[in-house]
Amino acid sequence: MGASLSLALRKYNSPWECTGVVRSKASQEEGTKLNIAKEILLEEEFLNSNSWDDYDLIVFSLPVDLTCDKINLIPDSYKGFITDLGSTKVKIIQAVEQKFGEEHLYYSSHPMAGSEHTGLAYAKEDLYDNRLCILTPPRRVAARAEEFITQFWKSINMNTIVIKADDHDQILAYLSHSPHILSSLLANWAEENSVVRDHNIRSPYPLTGGGFRDMTRIAGSNPEMWDAIINTNKAAIYHSLIDFRDRLNGLIAHLTSEKEPKDGFWKKYFQRSKVSRNKIMKLD
Amino acid sequence: MGASLSLALRKYNSPWECTGVVRSKASQEEGTKLNIAKEILLEEEFLNSNSWDDYDLIVFSLPVDLTCDKINLIPDSYKGFITDLGSTKVKIIQAVEQKFGEEHLYYSSHPMAGSEHTGLAYAKEDLYDNRLCILTPPRRVAARAEEFITQFWKSINMNTIVIKADDHDQILAYLSHSPHILSSLLANWAEENSVVRDHNIRSPYPLTGGGFRDMTRIAGSNPEMWDAIINTNKAAIYHSLIDFRDRLNGLIAHLTSEKEPKDGFWKKYFQRSKVSRNKIMKLD
Repeated sequence: MGASLSLALRKYNSPWECTGVVRSKASQEEGTKLNIAKEILLEEEFLNSNSWDDYDLIVFSLPVDLTCDKINLIPDSYKGFITDLGSTKVKIIQAVEQKFGEEHLYYSSHPMAGSEHTGLAYAKEDLYDNRLCILTPPRRVAARAEEFITQFWKSINMNTIVIKADDHDQILAYLSHSPHILSSLLANWAEENSVVRDHNIRSPYPLTGGGFRDMTRIAGSNPEMWDAIINTNKAAIYHSLIDFRDRLNGLIAHLTSEKEPKDGFWKKYFQRSKVSRNKIMKLD
Repeated sequence: MGASLSLALRKYNSPWECTGVVRSKASQEEGTKLNIAKEILLEEEFLNSNSWDDYDLIVFSLPVDLTCDKINLIPDSYKGFITDLGSTKVKIIQAVEQKFGEEHLYYSSHPMAGSEHTGLAYAKEDLYDNRLCILTPPRRVAARAEEFITQFWKSINMNTIVIKADDHDQILAYLSHSPHILSSLLANWAEENSVVRDHNIRSPYPLTGGGFRDMTRIAGSNPEMWDAIINTNKAAIYHSLIDFRDRLNGLIAHLTSEKEPKDGFWKKYFQRSKVSRNKIMKLD
């Protein structure tokens, strides 16, 4: 995410020069070789240099738990803007509000972009293009931070919307985190059924059509990152999955009902799904 | 499906000429205008003409319940081959075995191809290209029918595999039918959550990333066709969804467990999903 951001800033001829901060020597070497940013520092080099004030903006591109750790390291003297790319907001906003007792310049961001690939080699200059960036204000943030961060994302052709932390996390549970769990569940459930498994093993070709392929595209992508996401949004994910499970039980009950099979129940259900999907995807 | 089949036969320079049989005057006119087949007949024209014997092969491209109805209309005198494109097999094979008390030439097919679009205008000559066709033998079918139908699908560049009816329907419940229900459930579940709905309505942009988009691509597609598919495979779908629901309950329980949140449970679960998905998609 961070590397793609650097490439996007270059693509849009940003006036800012970008310094990358990475956690391993291997990433530093790969990033330098791929010319991802003007300069690539190791995290310890950056933290030991006391050079925060050399930068107008710090962007944390880290799992949520590590982002919270870094928030505590921000020097009180730092006068620049700060944001993050965290996938959940309640814990980050809590950390920011605990850190800053007075007016500050931390405005949280969640660019709704990504891919199933991890690593600098997959950095793409158009990853953020024309996607949505959800902005979440902590208490006591200065108005100029909202302005600066909003303009920053618009400068790489993102659309922005402001959503407060608890709504963000509930929305993301429904539209991203629980779907990720359900996609992964689908893959395990299907592969671990003995009849599917036996025929799959002896078939030289996949037994699936395009629907299953698409529904499981995100299954198992980036396990470490998603482990952290799930663990920072457990309550919202729990409630959304209870809702999903209860609705599934209703559908299962219909499969065993003694009603006339041609009552059109499924036709009506699928028609409703089409309307729902078009609303969510803004296709209507 | 039928129209795409006609176009595929043309693409591969098939020696056969194709006659389309449609259910409405509008389809007949559209098919003729689009030059989908050499000739397009209304169903009643075909049935009244007693011309079955003019054809070497009859392909039923109809919902499963209607396919079963048509099987009963096959004249005892017909000497050609017969197949269908039915998405479930138990009911079709039952109908075939009831119809033919002696050796016959009906060999059932399920080409694993399709799209979320319906209608002759969406016919594509490459819909079947390099996809899998599952073949299902009824009792008393002649060996030459298996040979003929297998060669027929290979002639338009399909791969074939033989799977008996009850295994087919269980596999399809897992890899196609229940995923279709779950994709549709996902769309309704998300759109009908009040927080998602309120923010979605006031957002000028979709609040989703690519995962939700892909997982709901098939939601609500072709409601009439899918209503018929679900109703002809209720038992297998029921058992597969009970399995899914029970596995989901296990994951929900983990979200409320008092275990150390950093036990890596989700990381391991997602890693296992990746392996499962790669096996199903034959990517490993």
